[in-house]
Amino acid sequence: MEKLVIVKIGGNVIDEPEALAAFLNDFAALAGKKILIHGGGKLATTLSTALGIETRMVEGRRITDRETLKVVTMVYGGWINKTIVSALQARGCNAMGLTGADANLILARKRRHASIDFGYVGDIERVNEKMLLQLLSSGLAPVCAALTHDGQGSMLNTNADAIAAALARALLPHYHTTLIYCFDKKGVLTSADENAVIPRLTREHYLHLKTQGIISRGMIPKLDEAFAALQAGAERIVICRAADLLPASAGKQAGTILA
Amino acid sequence: MEKLVIVKIGGNVIDEPEALAAFLNDFAALAGKKILIHGGGKLATTLSTALGIETRMVEGRRITDRETLKVVTMVYGGWINKTIVSALQARGCNAMGLTGADANLILARKRRHASIDFGYVGDIERVNEKMLLQLLSSGLAPVCAALTHDGQGSMLNTNADAIAAALARALLPHYHTTLIYCFDKKGVLTSADENAVIPRLTREHYLHLKTQGIISRGMIPKLDEAFAALQAGAERIVICRAADLLPASAGKQAGTILA
Repeated sequence: MEKLVIVKIGGNVIDEPEALAAFLNDFAALAGKKILIHGGGKLATTLSTALGIETRMVEGRRITDRETLKVVTMVYGGWINKTIVSALQARGCNAMGLTGADANLILARKRRHASIDFGYVGDIERVNEKMLLQLLSSGLAPVCAALTHDGQGSMLNTNADAIAAALARALLPHYHTTLIYCFDKKGVLTSADENAVIPRLTREHYLHLKTQGIISRGMIPKLDEAFAALQAGAERIVICRAADLLPASAGKQAGTILA
Repeated sequence: MEKLVIVKIGGNVIDEPEALAAFLNDFAALAGKKILIHGGGKLATTLSTALGIETRMVEGRRITDRETLKVVTMVYGGWINKTIVSALQARGCNAMGLTGADANLILARKRRHASIDFGYVGDIERVNEKMLLQLLSSGLAPVCAALTHDGQGSMLNTNADAIAAALARALLPHYHTTLIYCFDKKGVLTSADENAVIPRLTREHYLHLKTQGIISRGMIPKLDEAFAALQAGAERIVICRAADLLPASAGKQAGTILA
């Protein structure tokens, strides 16, 4: 089987033009099949504020009313997606920007929750792996925004970590898949010390650290998704700084490797 | 050769949810290969105003500074494109939203003009017909926003009429191509009377009406593009109301047919 690298890039890098440019240099330089999934960054919040739309976060997820959905669709699917795609094209990487609605790539359902109305937030139901395989075999590098659709005419705001893991799981039977979560820290940390990186993290160790409250709130859904992808058969899953993309994808020690 | 219908939908329909829904019903119902190109509508202006960005139009084209490029990329490439794509998916039409940057579909160059700096406005240089053919033969309906890229990392605001004509010209060797410009009038008019529709318009008649000042400013680039596509071999070019899409595509008399 051929290799595939799926990379998720977080918001902090997207907010800094120089860091983003350096990251896109590295992503463009990755050999072989690759997919990029990007989150939002601060622009959605800035734009909401400018438009007088209140930003509400619950459990690390943005409450997405009708107006907020408009903002995130504009920012994630429009500006950020096309900024990344045009920058990759300039670097010789044949990127194609996508959301889950395009070619029906990712179908989701509006989140149902006992007490919180998340609004237009989607939980992934199905990945159209046939279309992804087709795009990849055409030599394209899909660049996916953190947006899906419900199949009934509405876009849904969807966690980028979850999209990355769902795409990895869908493509596992077809590729030796490496999944790399790039963010602003050096890896999964055991303390507030930026250098306290766990080089290898097993599921047991993770569950232990979670019980002890050592692994913080935002990391939990990311790691839950990542371990599920590992269990499903992903070859390699790494959580690292954006600057460590190349060593992480080359199989070198970088950030935290899930095992 | 198989048939292909390329449809351009203008801003006025996009601004009205009910008219847009009716139009998308019709577009989804079109049999066979099809492409939709959409312009912007008022949302770009509304958003610019809300963000304190001045809107300046010269010769019917938006002067696109850096901040305006951000707005049009968000509105055309994000909100409008994904609203249309998700609505078409709900109607059983396998739409894929695109800009010229995606898969390097439409390369343009920043407009050079002796006296006016249009900013980030693109004139089309090359259409990646191979990729379009591939998308069409996968059963996808490309939905293109009025955005291209310069190949050097920048998006460019690009006239949707020009994109429609450029795609038609690129695909002519591969399909019997019908090009339909849908807008808010019944066709090309000879006077302010909404019913004074010219049923068939030849190039000579057009040039004559243009010299007489009967054909108004906004129609001129549209008709120039359309006649160029006709001369290149398009089978049928129609300018009509959005509500006349189905008869126009079925070869019936509707709006103004170029001849």
